[in-house]
Amino acid sequence: MSHSIHKKQKTVIIVAGGTGKRMQADIPKQFIELKSKPILMHTIEVFANYDRHINIIVVLPENQMKVWKQMCKKHNFNIVHQTVAGGVTRFDSVKNGLELTPDEGLVAVHDGVRPLVSVQTIHRCFEKAERTGAAIPVTDIVESIRKIEGNDNVTVDRNLYKAVQTPQVFDAQILKAAYRQNYVATFTDDASVVEASGHKISIVEGNKENIKITTPFDLEIGELFLD
Amino acid sequence: MSHSIHKKQKTVIIVAGGTGKRMQADIPKQFIELKSKPILMHTIEVFANYDRHINIIVVLPENQMKVWKQMCKKHNFNIVHQTVAGGVTRFDSVKNGLELTPDEGLVAVHDGVRPLVSVQTIHRCFEKAERTGAAIPVTDIVESIRKIEGNDNVTVDRNLYKAVQTPQVFDAQILKAAYRQNYVATFTDDASVVEASGHKISIVEGNKENIKITTPFDLEIGELFLD
Repeated sequence: MSHSIHKKQKTVIIVAGGTGKRMQADIPKQFIELKSKPILMHTIEVFANYDRHINIIVVLPENQMKVWKQMCKKHNFNIVHQTVAGGVTRFDSVKNGLELTPDEGLVAVHDGVRPLVSVQTIHRCFEKAERTGAAIPVTDIVESIRKIEGNDNVTVDRNLYKAVQTPQVFDAQILKAAYRQNYVATFTDDASVVEASGHKISIVEGNKENIKITTPFDLEIGELFLD
Repeated sequence: MSHSIHKKQKTVIIVAGGTGKRMQADIPKQFIELKSKPILMHTIEVFANYDRHINIIVVLPENQMKVWKQMCKKHNFNIVHQTVAGGVTRFDSVKNGLELTPDEGLVAVHDGVRPLVSVQTIHRCFEKAERTGAAIPVTDIVESIRKIEGNDNVTVDRNLYKAVQTPQVFDAQILKAAYRQNYVATFTDDASVVEASGHKISIVEGNKENIKITTPFDLEIGELFLD
């Protein structure tokens, strides 16, 4: 697959703000090893494989930046990337990443703990965002779903709903403008922030392996997928 | 946990109608072995563990009934159960199972390929259905979700949605009456059939391991959970 048709500068902000509480481990989940390498390194590698010229910005908790540098040394990890300290919320962390992002071009925001994103998914998101300004990967919902309505709950047509993944890719100007809004609780992902600023979101097909690794069990599933 | 407080007769209809297409295997998915034993046997065992007096009705494709009998012999599987041939659709299969179900009492309908349901989930469903007539297990949706609206799609509050599992448990009279309706395409599970007959559905907490095993990958996840 050739990516040379994309002339716009590309950036990815990889948000790795976890402190490891849900993983019942002392180290943040993005640093836990999957096949002998921290999850976050796998994640960075997929983006480098997609496009070796992409700007990579990794947002880390302030107190983990030194640990990360040591890890990179230990693992001989030499993919060029910038690091920046995260904020209290994910919203703040993305904002900090945007400070380092060029004003022109396309910018992806990706969860550090989604190392199983495919190059194809990344490609589909960038390609669509180049045309529409905002594109996110989604997958079908496999279970029946019900909607809670007050004390009741009703069957809804699951074909009308999609599960959302990352990377969520935007025109840099659109994303930067959206992040100038004040934070509200309905901002659950970048698409919801951009949508609140008045821009429509395009959806493309994600890949089902692209799970968020947040529990020890997810880690085992992740190893299965890597096999 | 004592179940002696439940005086109503209990039945479970285990629907095992799969022909194995999605599993890329020659044998139906309910017969594939999980830890050296067909999935369907694991499923039956959980219900027998929940209540050794429960009526167990297994709905199988007509041409698999003999194979199943041989499997039971081979595995020395001696949990008492009835078998009945399924129909063309799941709706028809449940209907056939209901023919063998007593008119009074509580009846659960469960997917044969959900061997990882917990005894606690089964207990919660029966207990709630005894009081309300209709209870199903649900779990939280962990990903952000979006709703398709024509050509657009919008963020929805995932806290208002739940993923539905089985067993779905009903008062036998209510379920039998509901299954006298003509089939329509919106009947995706038993709750939707009962709901269409005018009865409200109660929800209880399911267990997250209670996945439907329909792909080789699910099978590997299933083995992880059994460990």
